[in-house]
Amino acid sequence: MTTTSTPAPFTADDYRARMARAAESAAEAGLAGVLVAPGPDLVYLTGYRPTAVTERLTVLVLAAVQEPVLVVPTLEAPDAEHADGAAALTLRDWTDGKDPYAVTAPLLDVNGRFGVSDNAWAMHLLGFQKELPGTSYVSLTEALPMLRAVKDEHELARLDAAGAAADEAYGEIVKVAFAGRKETDVAADLAALLLTYGHSQVDFTVVGSGPNGANPHHEAGDRTIEHGDMVVLDFGGLKHGYGSDTTRTVHVGEPSAAEQRVHDVVREAQQAGFDAVRPGVACQDIDRAARAVIADAGYGEYFIHRTGHGIGVTTHEPPYMIEGEERPLVPGMCFSIEPGIYLPGRFGVRIEDIVTVTSDGGRRLNNTDRAMAIVE
Amino acid sequence: MTTTSTPAPFTADDYRARMARAAESAAEAGLAGVLVAPGPDLVYLTGYRPTAVTERLTVLVLAAVQEPVLVVPTLEAPDAEHADGAAALTLRDWTDGKDPYAVTAPLLDVNGRFGVSDNAWAMHLLGFQKELPGTSYVSLTEALPMLRAVKDEHELARLDAAGAAADEAYGEIVKVAFAGRKETDVAADLAALLLTYGHSQVDFTVVGSGPNGANPHHEAGDRTIEHGDMVVLDFGGLKHGYGSDTTRTVHVGEPSAAEQRVHDVVREAQQAGFDAVRPGVACQDIDRAARAVIADAGYGEYFIHRTGHGIGVTTHEPPYMIEGEERPLVPGMCFSIEPGIYLPGRFGVRIEDIVTVTSDGGRRLNNTDRAMAIVE
Repeated sequence: MTTTSTPAPFTADDYRARMARAAESAAEAGLAGVLVAPGPDLVYLTGYRPTAVTERLTVLVLAAVQEPVLVVPTLEAPDAEHADGAAALTLRDWTDGKDPYAVTAPLLDVNGRFGVSDNAWAMHLLGFQKELPGTSYVSLTEALPMLRAVKDEHELARLDAAGAAADEAYGEIVKVAFAGRKETDVAADLAALLLTYGHSQVDFTVVGSGPNGANPHHEAGDRTIEHGDMVVLDFGGLKHGYGSDTTRTVHVGEPSAAEQRVHDVVREAQQAGFDAVRPGVACQDIDRAARAVIADAGYGEYFIHRTGHGIGVTTHEPPYMIEGEERPLVPGMCFSIEPGIYLPGRFGVRIEDIVTVTSDGGRRLNNTDRAMAIVE
Repeated sequence: MTTTSTPAPFTADDYRARMARAAESAAEAGLAGVLVAPGPDLVYLTGYRPTAVTERLTVLVLAAVQEPVLVVPTLEAPDAEHADGAAALTLRDWTDGKDPYAVTAPLLDVNGRFGVSDNAWAMHLLGFQKELPGTSYVSLTEALPMLRAVKDEHELARLDAAGAAADEAYGEIVKVAFAGRKETDVAADLAALLLTYGHSQVDFTVVGSGPNGANPHHEAGDRTIEHGDMVVLDFGGLKHGYGSDTTRTVHVGEPSAAEQRVHDVVREAQQAGFDAVRPGVACQDIDRAARAVIADAGYGEYFIHRTGHGIGVTTHEPPYMIEGEERPLVPGMCFSIEPGIYLPGRFGVRIEDIVTVTSDGGRRLNNTDRAMAIVE
């Protein structure tokens, strides 16, 4: 087992800098400010993660012209005061029965345009739109898509550790018995391994055997894995607050020539995606590079999802490696490259690494063998 | 342990009826339809619970003039097809790279007003507002607050079973050791008991000892419980898809006269709230009845939250027992009555039962002793 020490928590200064950068980016984008709801944006900017997300409004208001203010239900104020970034912001609490939008309104430019967290509740957006009819809104991902995309060295160290832990889990899972066990049994093994190797949270443990592998969104089911099955293993979660996500496709016993061929194509596509990574390249070019290999091999219609997604305080965030995403790669960005081929009723193959952009190319955060492992 | 059989799943006909009623209620409320996002509304109306809620649009479109349509990412279509209510709706899938709002737009009246799930992502609401500038929106809770509030007999049976299971957990937890153990240890015991008594999901296990009890939103922490502590125990989750939520406040050893006095006031307040329950009474009157007892005893400023919330497929939903909520109680509604007194730096007391409205009053779904239990 890898022994990794717990990294020091981010400090109030770290959060202050992140909030200042967000407010600055918002101003540059022509926004009066940003409204940040509970979720990954709020964790990233303040370190505050409410114990539960309810219909009660909690919102961080960032604007270039004022200090950060976190509006919280009175009930939650004691928790918010203990957030790692609390010293970098002012709390303003509101009590049940009060109108939280009216409480927040004085912090907002009544004619301003604001970025709002993608996952803010629609009811809160409607509350602001009603309270301040002169305001307008844009999703934070649309306005500031790269707000969390570029990781600093401390974040990258966490992502490296999470990736290494996922790799260790993979190194163990190929030794367990597959044939005769249910997908859910192997998924439970994977979850336990992620925890063993230091994850605090398991987000997904996909075990897609045989025809189940042809559904890229299948998690793990009651199907008993059989000799001769292809099995997609896609797993990840959070370690020290940062994500892992890797996929390998293994085979129970020796594969057929047709299975090997599909696996080879996906592996080649994944390599092509990786080889295309360097600063300045558009995100969509990573998708195109991987997709071209699959299309050229005649499987284009069976690659039915985008090639990748960013990763950080969540396992699924911008930047997206998808046709139409023209923004350029920047050093410090971290994202998955995970092409796949899904043959309905037969099997699926997917291979995925997290990759970070370096000054002159890419570096993989997952480094287990991408060849098709034979399991028992 | 109570042995309860697993209830039969709700059928496609059950879901068809719920969707029809929702569409009808929407039309009566002057809406062109409702847009339902993943979450409790979608579970209630279709039985579909996506394995993960992502930025990809999934939305159920209900309108009086057309059959229900569930718009889903292509990746998730195979899962959606297996939802219990799938036979009662049409799936329309969209593939990564397409604009999901454009895909959904033909289902919507371009000048219509729509109810939208409270917890729909703001980015999706913004997507619809941009795609169809002539539409307008209102939160589903504001437009149709009582959509899920009145439970039918099958739902009530599930809530009864969940309440009885929580009561059995309480019956066991008062036998465990408190003094010298951490709050988190007792919380773990509570979680295990809820699972033992048939819960599939534990939503919260609050253990607020001594001064921690004075924060109504405290969950459970590292504090070691001491002899002489008051301890708030508030716990619940889902059993067979329906919620439990009950609170009792216990004392480690004999309480002081002052502690007993506060507990007596809260118990009297909880009883007053319960006694006020009958059809036609405004929700706010339940709050007022409980609050008056606490205010009259001189603790008004220390009761810092509303008196209750509804419960069903979630543990926290309309109707709310709060000042300003003038809608009347209707037979079949189920909600908590949970007044409390929170003395900063000292201790807190809260007592909570789930109550359902009957034809002529109320019936408690939690029936453990409300007197202050003495634990060790």
